[in-house]
Amino acid sequence: MTASHPVRPDASPLLRKERFLLPDGILYLDGNSLGPLPRHVPERLDGTVREEWGQSLIRGWNEHGWMDMPRRIGDRIARLIGADPGTVVLGDTLSIKVHQALSAALEMRPERRLILSDSGNFPTDLYMAEGLIAELDRGHALRLGAPEDVIDRIDDSVAAVMLTHVDYRTGRLHDMEAITRAAHAAGAVMIWDLAHSAGALPLDLAGLGAEFAVGCTYKYLNGGPGAPAFIQVRPDLIDAIRPALSGWLGHAAPFAFEPSYRPGEGIERMRVGTPPVLQMAALDAALDLWDDVDMDRLRAASIRLSERFISEVEARCPELDLASPRDPEARGSQVSFRHPEGYAMMQALIADGVIGDFRAPDLMRFGFTPLYLSEADVVAAVDVLERITRTRSWDRSEFRARARVT
Amino acid sequence: MTASHPVRPDASPLLRKERFLLPDGILYLDGNSLGPLPRHVPERLDGTVREEWGQSLIRGWNEHGWMDMPRRIGDRIARLIGADPGTVVLGDTLSIKVHQALSAALEMRPERRLILSDSGNFPTDLYMAEGLIAELDRGHALRLGAPEDVIDRIDDSVAAVMLTHVDYRTGRLHDMEAITRAAHAAGAVMIWDLAHSAGALPLDLAGLGAEFAVGCTYKYLNGGPGAPAFIQVRPDLIDAIRPALSGWLGHAAPFAFEPSYRPGEGIERMRVGTPPVLQMAALDAALDLWDDVDMDRLRAASIRLSERFISEVEARCPELDLASPRDPEARGSQVSFRHPEGYAMMQALIADGVIGDFRAPDLMRFGFTPLYLSEADVVAAVDVLERITRTRSWDRSEFRARARVT
Repeated sequence: MTASHPVRPDASPLLRKERFLLPDGILYLDGNSLGPLPRHVPERLDGTVREEWGQSLIRGWNEHGWMDMPRRIGDRIARLIGADPGTVVLGDTLSIKVHQALSAALEMRPERRLILSDSGNFPTDLYMAEGLIAELDRGHALRLGAPEDVIDRIDDSVAAVMLTHVDYRTGRLHDMEAITRAAHAAGAVMIWDLAHSAGALPLDLAGLGAEFAVGCTYKYLNGGPGAPAFIQVRPDLIDAIRPALSGWLGHAAPFAFEPSYRPGEGIERMRVGTPPVLQMAALDAALDLWDDVDMDRLRAASIRLSERFISEVEARCPELDLASPRDPEARGSQVSFRHPEGYAMMQALIADGVIGDFRAPDLMRFGFTPLYLSEADVVAAVDVLERITRTRSWDRSEFRARARVT
Repeated sequence: MTASHPVRPDASPLLRKERFLLPDGILYLDGNSLGPLPRHVPERLDGTVREEWGQSLIRGWNEHGWMDMPRRIGDRIARLIGADPGTVVLGDTLSIKVHQALSAALEMRPERRLILSDSGNFPTDLYMAEGLIAELDRGHALRLGAPEDVIDRIDDSVAAVMLTHVDYRTGRLHDMEAITRAAHAAGAVMIWDLAHSAGALPLDLAGLGAEFAVGCTYKYLNGGPGAPAFIQVRPDLIDAIRPALSGWLGHAAPFAFEPSYRPGEGIERMRVGTPPVLQMAALDAALDLWDDVDMDRLRAASIRLSERFISEVEARCPELDLASPRDPEARGSQVSFRHPEGYAMMQALIADGVIGDFRAPDLMRFGFTPLYLSEADVVAAVDVLERITRTRSWDRSEFRARARVT
């Protein structure tokens, strides 16, 4: 095994590994897919179940603030993504939030017919756009550019530009400011998907001026499997939105049971149905870990980890090719390496306690999360990776399997 | 206090009160809004959190079958609503499932422009229809009949008949067979909302032949606050549905990350985004209580309870007016009584340990759930109601408050 560079002591004030319940012997580099379990979440959730649901029963909606969770947790997320309070609400899945944003955007530009995205966007965003286009049946089309030049495809035929800030495969970052500016210059509505950004990078949605942002909370924010999604709407637009998914909890007076829909005031109108209280409670507890986190320092720590990872891997595992941007300012909080036998290699890594994930055809992804990963962990993970690359014959014919890890 | 009729011993094999964690001193007659906590759910959910999320992390999707939950739990619900296996899938909220069903129904009848519902339908169903109509912007309209004669409003201009089986205010039951037949005779698509039916009544969706059914699981099925909704699609139609909310987990190969949407085989295509695993786990555990429940016997027990309640209330609280159908075959598993001070009266009842709920302007609702309510409980609840009606002056001016209980 090649000698490692010296490892700095785990002195980062962001590192709080003891506040997570991580399995013994595991190095978890997949917080970009599903964040690990914060240590205090089980007890908090158990309290919600036994005390709130069990003892308050239906009264829990009032006594324990269940009804206000989507907005209240929205404000906690708002701080982490640089949005104004009162502009973020939780609920549903990211797919549904994409539909809401896109449907509203197309209504804001009724004379235009084009949705612009890129080939690096996460498929569900594209699928939801296709579904909406078919449902509307008004001749809309989805145009995909390459990530690198999608900005050049923006013109005044575009109703909405819909992009994911961080490419889920390579970690490549879009330039949010430049693209949002270009979209607005062309009169298009801007929608950002922050699935891989929230909890990973500092963001300034209030300053950015994009009309919509959506995201999920089960990755870097550690909200748990199936944690609810969020939507953010630019403050000056909220009260003009006519929600397509006009459910009763987005109504101005849900408990008046009026026969006709009247949108609620402000961001509440982007709510749809009954909030998933148990998922919300787990997420709410998980967010306690973020109360004192400065996002700029988090980003700096994440870059230190990923830079260390890249330099160790390139020095010790030369058969792997970096698939992520080399410039840390141009990538999110994950790093991907290519190898023709990447799937099998990732399975071997997981079997040896280093959990990353795989994306076809050949990408091994590794996420860097300074709340529970130290530089020593990163070096230890590369130790395992190096051992695997050295001690096995990575002949393609030996491995035949299909990716299932999400 | 008037002497009660003799109470039968709690010999019902359906009664399993000991398997619920009910608060001491509470008689819970609001399981039609939010079912109580099954005793084994907290431990099961804690296992999902600590062992599955905590220890398996991202591997939980495969190792613990998270990805298959929507379909697997769907099959458990299918049995309870008389649907064929493979025709029910869980996810999202009831509002979203209404949108899915209605959007598909309108696409099946492109030449028609009318959605028919009734004034007794739950508002969110009507709101979602309004939102879809506005979004489609193709001249659709929502027509509301009175519950009693909505069947007479069905004609060949109707694209979809969308009704809730049990009226949420009065418990009045629609005649599913007659209305479905009438809808089909007129060439309309039939959508049933089973929010207050699933877990309350025997249903025969397989025999009924309605195109779509939707429902929720946090009421009689005790899935917990915010438990996911379900959608059922008639088997012969499933593979022809082009889902409007075409999310990645409804894709034929979600993990191939193809650029374009291809609907999954069968009911899987009605999935949208990431399943709420924690809510699903709580619901899955809660459904264990239903494995040996015969729905016909449950219905008979529910009728015994509600008949006893009505006769006791009418004998002992003559100032209350029955708002539900008197014929038990014509009502669901809830009974409503009217009183001008119903809101304040319900607050007094709740304060004295009898939990029902209130619907403006004057309805007190009581749900009858044979799994945890005995005939003795029903009589004891009326004892409290009688005491309240006798010992206070129910002068309207004394009470000014607005309903918040859901």
